[in-house]
Amino acid sequence: MEPRRKEVEARLAGLGFAPRDAAILADHFLAAEARGKVGHGVSRVEWLEGLPSLDPSAQPVRVASQAGFERWEGRGALGYLTLAAICAEVRAHPPTPARLVVAADCFPTGMLGYWVRGLAEAGLVAVLTATSPRRLPHPAGGPPLAGTNPLAIGIPSSDGRPLVADVSMGKVTYGDVLRGAASPEELVPFGGEQAHKAFALAVGLQLLVDSLAGDGYGAVLLVASPEFDPVPELRRLAAGARLPGDR
Amino acid sequence: MEPRRKEVEARLAGLGFAPRDAAILADHFLAAEARGKVGHGVSRVEWLEGLPSLDPSAQPVRVASQAGFERWEGRGALGYLTLAAICAEVRAHPPTPARLVVAADCFPTGMLGYWVRGLAEAGLVAVLTATSPRRLPHPAGGPPLAGTNPLAIGIPSSDGRPLVADVSMGKVTYGDVLRGAASPEELVPFGGEQAHKAFALAVGLQLLVDSLAGDGYGAVLLVASPEFDPVPELRRLAAGARLPGDR
Repeated sequence: MEPRRKEVEARLAGLGFAPRDAAILADHFLAAEARGKVGHGVSRVEWLEGLPSLDPSAQPVRVASQAGFERWEGRGALGYLTLAAICAEVRAHPPTPARLVVAADCFPTGMLGYWVRGLAEAGLVAVLTATSPRRLPHPAGGPPLAGTNPLAIGIPSSDGRPLVADVSMGKVTYGDVLRGAASPEELVPFGGEQAHKAFALAVGLQLLVDSLAGDGYGAVLLVASPEFDPVPELRRLAAGARLPGDR
Repeated sequence: MEPRRKEVEARLAGLGFAPRDAAILADHFLAAEARGKVGHGVSRVEWLEGLPSLDPSAQPVRVASQAGFERWEGRGALGYLTLAAICAEVRAHPPTPARLVVAADCFPTGMLGYWVRGLAEAGLVAVLTATSPRRLPHPAGGPPLAGTNPLAIGIPSSDGRPLVADVSMGKVTYGDVLRGAASPEELVPFGGEQAHKAFALAVGLQLLVDSLAGDGYGAVLLVASPEFDPVPELRRLAAGARLPGDR
């Protein structure tokens, strides 16, 4: 194991996480850093260390399961662990052909592209959104009405290079504000004079999750087995241009 | 019947559409105009009149149906009629609790907010996207890679006022370009310096539809029965500010 991963897992173990959960968390944090999303990176271990109440033994529970639908509850587990459990279950029992998974009590969820990338690498189409504290106001001003509510879409590809779109509706991230890289006034829907579009998406996604998962923070995941393989043709059309999720 | 609706239905009947289909089309065109989306309005009747091949008797077919999933094919029918048939079927047999509907050969689909609004008014959460000719280039330039691929989200509300977000990923619409209200150079992903975000969403949605519906234009609809009713609380927080889909 690389030294940095070992160190991160050791710190997580020090917080009381079991080895399997520490490895899940470390993998997410290191993957986020590798993609430059430092706000979702190892700095989150410090954040965990400072949490007043953290139950490292909490485990998510699947509370409903039927053809095409599952419902999970975090039961005090970190959202990362809830999404990891959901994704593991999806990989173990892929949808035939589609499944909606609703997760209540699911926060924080980190870099959503990480989760859909894992599913796309397993051959599954995945669409994921998740809520977080309301921080985006209406473009005309006023109180915050919606979280930055990213939408992540992962599409498998026969060339082994899935396409992963992962778009936050905020102009900047809350992490940027926390570390002084952006001012609180910049935490608005992206799009400048068309910020009403990102605002509409943020509000729509907020209510989608809220209407299915209920109070608190939640996540909604759609997974499906693809019937077609459109990514190679898009890469051909793009003629080498960087596509979403490429490094 | 109001005179304008009567006139529009008469023109559609003149094209060979059966009364039921003419009424469906007229209702969509007039609703689009009422919301200021003139590109999806009655001007489309002229467009239909000019199409080299139009089969007004074509009807969509549901080719697969199982718990949580349906697949439809347009079979030469206009996308409007395919979505209308899907939405009618969903209303007649609501999902318990969720269903993914994939529609192949589904073009044009018009104002997507119209379809999710109808479902939200029937008490269902709905998320809909659809592809159209590739018109959006990479923010760095190059050939068009994705359609304007709107994402529409409809959420029912106990106060009788559903929230409807309906966001195209283009800075302008193709209709705006056609009628000279925008230049072809403006048909790019919205967002200005953050246009990479709308581009990522357009590409992700394009591949979502392509991977499930295959070649040609298609649509993907997720419908679910909500467990919670978050819209009234959001309206309270918004304190009268105009929310997506409000007039």
